[in-house]
Amino acid sequence: MTQQAQQFFERHRDTLEGAVQAINSREFWTPYPESLKKYDEDAVKGAPAAFEALCKQPFSLVSPGASERVGAEVSPYGFELGITYDQPETAALIDAMQAAMPAWRDAGAKARVGVCLEILARLNAQSPLIGQAVMHTSGQAPMMAFQAGAPHAQDRGLEAVTYAWQAMAQVPETAQWVKPQGKHDPLVMNKRFHIVPRGISLVVACSTFPTWNTYPGLFASLATGNPVIVKPHPGAILPVAMTVKVAQDVLAEAGFDPALVTLAPDSLEAPVTKELALHPAVKLIDFTGSNAFGEWLEQNATQAQVFTEKAGINSVIIDSVADLKAVTRNLAFTLSLYSGQMCTTTQAIYVPKGGIETAEGHMSFDQVAGALAKAVEKFLGDNDRACAVLGAIQAPATAERIAACRELGEVLLDSESREHPQFPKARIHTPLLLKVDAGQRDAFSEERFGPISFVIATDSTAHSIELAREVIGEKGAITLGAYTTDEAVAEQFEQLAMDVAAPLSLNLDGGVFVNQSAAFSDFHATGGNPAANASLCDQAFVARRFVVVQSRRHAPAEA
Amino acid sequence: MTQQAQQFFERHRDTLEGAVQAINSREFWTPYPESLKKYDEDAVKGAPAAFEALCKQPFSLVSPGASERVGAEVSPYGFELGITYDQPETAALIDAMQAAMPAWRDAGAKARVGVCLEILARLNAQSPLIGQAVMHTSGQAPMMAFQAGAPHAQDRGLEAVTYAWQAMAQVPETAQWVKPQGKHDPLVMNKRFHIVPRGISLVVACSTFPTWNTYPGLFASLATGNPVIVKPHPGAILPVAMTVKVAQDVLAEAGFDPALVTLAPDSLEAPVTKELALHPAVKLIDFTGSNAFGEWLEQNATQAQVFTEKAGINSVIIDSVADLKAVTRNLAFTLSLYSGQMCTTTQAIYVPKGGIETAEGHMSFDQVAGALAKAVEKFLGDNDRACAVLGAIQAPATAERIAACRELGEVLLDSESREHPQFPKARIHTPLLLKVDAGQRDAFSEERFGPISFVIATDSTAHSIELAREVIGEKGAITLGAYTTDEAVAEQFEQLAMDVAAPLSLNLDGGVFVNQSAAFSDFHATGGNPAANASLCDQAFVARRFVVVQSRRHAPAEA
Repeated sequence: MTQQAQQFFERHRDTLEGAVQAINSREFWTPYPESLKKYDEDAVKGAPAAFEALCKQPFSLVSPGASERVGAEVSPYGFELGITYDQPETAALIDAMQAAMPAWRDAGAKARVGVCLEILARLNAQSPLIGQAVMHTSGQAPMMAFQAGAPHAQDRGLEAVTYAWQAMAQVPETAQWVKPQGKHDPLVMNKRFHIVPRGISLVVACSTFPTWNTYPGLFASLATGNPVIVKPHPGAILPVAMTVKVAQDVLAEAGFDPALVTLAPDSLEAPVTKELALHPAVKLIDFTGSNAFGEWLEQNATQAQVFTEKAGINSVIIDSVADLKAVTRNLAFTLSLYSGQMCTTTQAIYVPKGGIETAEGHMSFDQVAGALAKAVEKFLGDNDRACAVLGAIQAPATAERIAACRELGEVLLDSESREHPQFPKARIHTPLLLKVDAGQRDAFSEERFGPISFVIATDSTAHSIELAREVIGEKGAITLGAYTTDEAVAEQFEQLAMDVAAPLSLNLDGGVFVNQSAAFSDFHATGGNPAANASLCDQAFVARRFVVVQSRRHAPAEA
Repeated sequence: MTQQAQQFFERHRDTLEGAVQAINSREFWTPYPESLKKYDEDAVKGAPAAFEALCKQPFSLVSPGASERVGAEVSPYGFELGITYDQPETAALIDAMQAAMPAWRDAGAKARVGVCLEILARLNAQSPLIGQAVMHTSGQAPMMAFQAGAPHAQDRGLEAVTYAWQAMAQVPETAQWVKPQGKHDPLVMNKRFHIVPRGISLVVACSTFPTWNTYPGLFASLATGNPVIVKPHPGAILPVAMTVKVAQDVLAEAGFDPALVTLAPDSLEAPVTKELALHPAVKLIDFTGSNAFGEWLEQNATQAQVFTEKAGINSVIIDSVADLKAVTRNLAFTLSLYSGQMCTTTQAIYVPKGGIETAEGHMSFDQVAGALAKAVEKFLGDNDRACAVLGAIQAPATAERIAACRELGEVLLDSESREHPQFPKARIHTPLLLKVDAGQRDAFSEERFGPISFVIATDSTAHSIELAREVIGEKGAITLGAYTTDEAVAEQFEQLAMDVAAPLSLNLDGGVFVNQSAAFSDFHATGGNPAANASLCDQAFVARRFVVVQSRRHAPAEA
């Protein structure tokens, strides 16, 4: 391996060892602080200006065969970014990346992991600026854009590198095989085992989490030897381009071809994803986005290993609670954060129509639903705080969906537009909360992407569980929350979670939210229901990205 | 977990620990002896009679919803087995297996692995009889049928259980997550992690290796919590049925539903594989067989994880040799063993038309080809030995193919029929060896299943490598052999092996053969070329068979 890659590996060895421990223990751990105070003060202060300096410019990358330029990003906060990007030509891109692959493969696991760890460290140093880029493409509020877009995304990238390292390290580089032959000399074979990448990896990024959902596939593929094309969403190219730039710089510095990681931007008018996804050289596809396209990939890109994160009907079941105020405060945050544009945001909240038991006595269905609506209203009462939680709506279609969904049920809390104190043109909308009956299945059992949720009146908790089982069984879910003060019911929720393969958050009423998952500890999605066919991150996420090719020969006769 | 399963686990703990060490070190290891002397003498002597006693009888299994009986096996040694088997009704079968799944899932990894290890131990005790069943369905000669059909198959089953155990053990059952909050109390969550099976597993067995190719998928799925339907080839039901019987007995003894492992036999006239493979409840499919059907599964059974072992153009490249006699003796065994009906048998042998260097000086192409033909002829000169190596041809179509292929090239060695000393009606044919030019690509680059091989005249070793790269790139290969006395050329073979993802056997001229692979050490197929999309056995083979479902809740406040 190159000397530089070796140095990168040694520099970050402690980080890697910490990460290995963390994925095995699932305890809290992170090397990338989520507090801005831990970052260079000038970088933090200068981030908005540094972001502005990137705007209205071409963004330069190594881009094989590029002749066209694309780029028409518009900040959900109300202005055009004005950045253009080279669009590589597919055949030249594939050729260049295939040519780059053998040296990357032959460098070995240690060199590749060293390079990946250095890329992550440099991305971490750029976190304040990456936060700005994520904010002005996804619409996330500044603090979330920084945390989820930079350190938390880096955590998920590191987690993938760590799983890849662990999987590759499980295969010895060499072995001597000595088979006894009774009275005769044993058979002795010397064997070598090579980690061989599958081929070109295509990572299709989304507009709402352009880094967080992209880093796992990117780093899992790269660490295991596969060149990676990142196809950003046309609405959120910059954070991905910045990531590719860092990767290309580090690769070149370590003596590898920077074209091992490339950007393939396109436009809404002339998308390139299908062409790339069906290319015979593309052997791995990571996708985050709509169910329709995810399922199309699963069914059509059969030449590739396909990893999808789609959408489902994230659900919360309320059976009984200790402290209704704490519960509704917790759920209000979940429904408000990033205006419900997380793939983990709750859409369906099942409550028995006869009401529930609480520490303060019985509460009717309407009291529970009303308490939730009030909690959201109160939480978003202060406009500055509201804007800092809601962020902006990424796509105009999402804003339109809010209005269209208003008639699906009885309005418990109407969605309002808000004016951002700093960006008056920002697209900001508070959550819409609807009341429906369990029979109005068409209303709540279709994904309604955005700040749109339903409180569903069921016959009983048993009915709630049955409905959730059916709906998640059919449509999937990335998160499942539940509340009960009865351990026997808690056990039923645990069984439900296993039956529908959705991770369960039980009785969250403090500072942890059902829509958040912590790298190294929480598995994000399970891959076992229709909302996602892969989990971030587990062994299956990395083990399919390489094969083992061995060689064997007789050991030389002893002298 | 049940007490019985716990006892099974403890009984076999040492075996499991030995197997874990073996898959990690890839050194020689096996708990199942391949010498008949290590088995109960009466069982060995009585095996043929015990086999006969099974014939002309119904074979009983737990078989949900069964109303029809099927079974028309004919021994390739020339007689009808006359055994019939219950054919379960699909809907009843699926319902029963789904109902059995939760208890098996909830029993946990240790209980499931304990049960699997006990099944394997009991199969091992039945090895002499299983050898007879494999012999009279696959046509393998008695010693091979015993070794490959019993201990070696059990090795591969144990290897799969071991990978499954290692993968499941990597996920902790619980964790406490403590996230510091500066001056405030930390956030503390208690988490549980469950191994959750994907669903019903379908293992489609083949006629030539009804146990060896079946056990990896069967045991990998079962150990990770999935109920398993085994769909045997209509020509080789008995060894699979015996296996299912042992599994059902052990499951019942341990307090589980025996229908967790079932047999779904069919007939050539009314096959059921497609119906089962597309059933929405079937989430895992293991298949060994033809490229056409394997590719159909990969492209159509998109609701399932599909693991295929198909066929390719297994190749040997001869550049130069130290001892031509030893090399041709080694290859003669490979071409003769089980009449070339192994998925690992060499079909294409590339030799430069200008000849090769040997320790005895230069040898022309014709001398090399002639030496190989002579070596096969000599090896099979003694009819008893020949029959004991060749075994019988499993399918009449394979015997017909030999005749049809005769005109594809110049006959170096013609195939002959042989008469078996004990079974005069046995279908026995020696290898056909043809000489072709590199330009006759249609002849050698299509799979010719059976004892049919080609010596291909190329321009040079570089040309041989280029041809092998193209042919294997397009058609795949499960094995690749190569011979050279030049280390620089050996390195080119090593690169070729990585480029086409085929395992390399270099300079085999002793007691190890390119068509044999040793469990715990050799990866059988890589999963990285068109001959197979999975390897027996690696992490990817097991990690995709389960998902992790977690639950989390706040830790109780301290008293």
